[in-house]
Amino acid sequence: MAALELDQAAPPSLTHDIVRWISQEYHDMNGSSIQTLESPPTAAEFAQLVHISRPVVIKGFHIPALKRWTDDYLQTKLQGQPISVAITPNGRNRQADALAAGPEGRLFFVEPFVEKVSMTCLLEQLNAGTCIQQDSDDLSASYLQSQNGNIYSSRFFESPNDDSSEFGALREDVPSHIPWVTEALGRNPDAVNLWIGNSKSITSIHSDPYENIYTVIHGSKHFTLLPPCEGWCLQERIYPHAVYGHTDNSNCLSVIPSSDTPQVRWSSVINPDLPGSLPPEAHPLHVTLEAGDTLYLPVGWWHYVQQSGPTTIALNWWYDAEVRGMNWIWLSLLRGSGDVPLGNDENDTR
Amino acid sequence: MAALELDQAAPPSLTHDIVRWISQEYHDMNGSSIQTLESPPTAAEFAQLVHISRPVVIKGFHIPALKRWTDDYLQTKLQGQPISVAITPNGRNRQADALAAGPEGRLFFVEPFVEKVSMTCLLEQLNAGTCIQQDSDDLSASYLQSQNGNIYSSRFFESPNDDSSEFGALREDVPSHIPWVTEALGRNPDAVNLWIGNSKSITSIHSDPYENIYTVIHGSKHFTLLPPCEGWCLQERIYPHAVYGHTDNSNCLSVIPSSDTPQVRWSSVINPDLPGSLPPEAHPLHVTLEAGDTLYLPVGWWHYVQQSGPTTIALNWWYDAEVRGMNWIWLSLLRGSGDVPLGNDENDTR
Repeated sequence: MAALELDQAAPPSLTHDIVRWISQEYHDMNGSSIQTLESPPTAAEFAQLVHISRPVVIKGFHIPALKRWTDDYLQTKLQGQPISVAITPNGRNRQADALAAGPEGRLFFVEPFVEKVSMTCLLEQLNAGTCIQQDSDDLSASYLQSQNGNIYSSRFFESPNDDSSEFGALREDVPSHIPWVTEALGRNPDAVNLWIGNSKSITSIHSDPYENIYTVIHGSKHFTLLPPCEGWCLQERIYPHAVYGHTDNSNCLSVIPSSDTPQVRWSSVINPDLPGSLPPEAHPLHVTLEAGDTLYLPVGWWHYVQQSGPTTIALNWWYDAEVRGMNWIWLSLLRGSGDVPLGNDENDTR
Repeated sequence: MAALELDQAAPPSLTHDIVRWISQEYHDMNGSSIQTLESPPTAAEFAQLVHISRPVVIKGFHIPALKRWTDDYLQTKLQGQPISVAITPNGRNRQADALAAGPEGRLFFVEPFVEKVSMTCLLEQLNAGTCIQQDSDDLSASYLQSQNGNIYSSRFFESPNDDSSEFGALREDVPSHIPWVTEALGRNPDAVNLWIGNSKSITSIHSDPYENIYTVIHGSKHFTLLPPCEGWCLQERIYPHAVYGHTDNSNCLSVIPSSDTPQVRWSSVINPDLPGSLPPEAHPLHVTLEAGDTLYLPVGWWHYVQQSGPTTIALNWWYDAEVRGMNWIWLSLLRGSGDVPLGNDENDTR
């Protein structure tokens, strides 16, 4: 998904006094713990969690993929099926979107190069811990993260036969929706996605306009989370758009500035886990999901995601967030666009 | 219940630009309609309504009281039981709390005089449309609204035998909780109240820190509603506290200033339905409940309530609002106490 569009209405900016007061109050009233449920909630219980809008780890949400998906199984099922894989030269991508230096040292918001490979090839690369050597100085990273509903898109719920998928052969292992979420939200998912990467794939910090259910099938995922009200700690700025591509006949991937894509608002914080990268008012939460664990990640929560294990496989269900009532307006206000500077101004020291 | 205590943490004030933007955005995204459900929702559906936090009219929530409660039935059931009735000289009370002029013409927040009468006497007064004549110029109004859980209080759910009630004989007609609400919120009610009044009893505009389920048993109730984000339109001010009482041997009720009760923050708008009493940015909603209708009135919503029919009987279930997450903090912020003036300053023209 592209950058969050919450800020399009350009609300007035909250003062620093207000955002600091909100952050402190939020932390005082909610603490730093993340609740763990030992089994999936009922629809009513989940609806209550959505209202509270705090991340929750859910155990026991067991789907066929969890038992069935070995490397052999995936290769056999997807034999002969080209799949879209995002390639970045340095392995840092935000679901394939992240900041990187381009021409003249300017920072860009860069989308990955997309390559079609076989599942066999992808798994070989990931398991070896190395990838296609794109550049003599920098090994590239592959990340299966074609995230616009690569298993099921919203079209599936309107007309199942018209929703073609590179991973159609895996659908029998992945429920198209989660009953307790669908009932609680009163709607079907907008997208169900498969993610396959390794420790080289790091997702830069961002937030999504979705209620997110995220299940790990293999390996471990490490989340650094900040509530929507701490977004001001992430120094969002405006960056020009670019894509990774080949500029000549070499294997090297270069940052190629886009000519007609709008600028992108993105966090300037490259690694929120690095000491000093966040102000003292920020209270990041850390949670690790192992295979079989599910995270409820509420709309608007900021997340930075790392993974470990030779190959990490995950699935997620994105549900449109509720836009009725006040919640969406609060999220817009917290992202008030009034004072977001350009990312490459004179004071930019990176 | 006393005045809303949301403002105790004294958050910084939102600017007028911000509150105007929020009000406009809220109206643009939510409109002015009130949803009607033809039958009670499931727990998951109700939890979703709580998340949206808009008023909803619910049909078909039928409880024994609706069929059983005639005047004869109530008088027979409560024979010999003194019941607490609020008396005000002018019939305007906010669940017995409202502004009124006291000594030297100053405005006070005044609580009613409470008298113990029989149900027979109360119903006679209400049905006659006249009440105890307290004052030659102004007939007083009686309103049964002893609202601290006069049918069930929170104590009932801990220790049912320790929760005595003037209306214990009516409990078999009133469920102690509403299953679809209790499941959705994950808690029992804080208070279940009986209200008996007539058209002379008007509830001044205020908001409560509760999720409220309000069912009309007899007569009609007319609600004027404003969302929490339009609270700034209501000109809250700080008023000294007083009670109605008898200062001499006459029947007259007078405003008696309290000596040691904290001042009260209250809306200066006496009648929001009067043209010109609200700024053009306010978008009040109007809804009438007839016997058998139920209103879900979400936490923080402002309400002004009138009633019609010789006698109006209603029940309500108050559930504590969710304080986890951001909602409570937003409500506090919307009631930011920074710029609330005193109610009797030199510019006060009432």
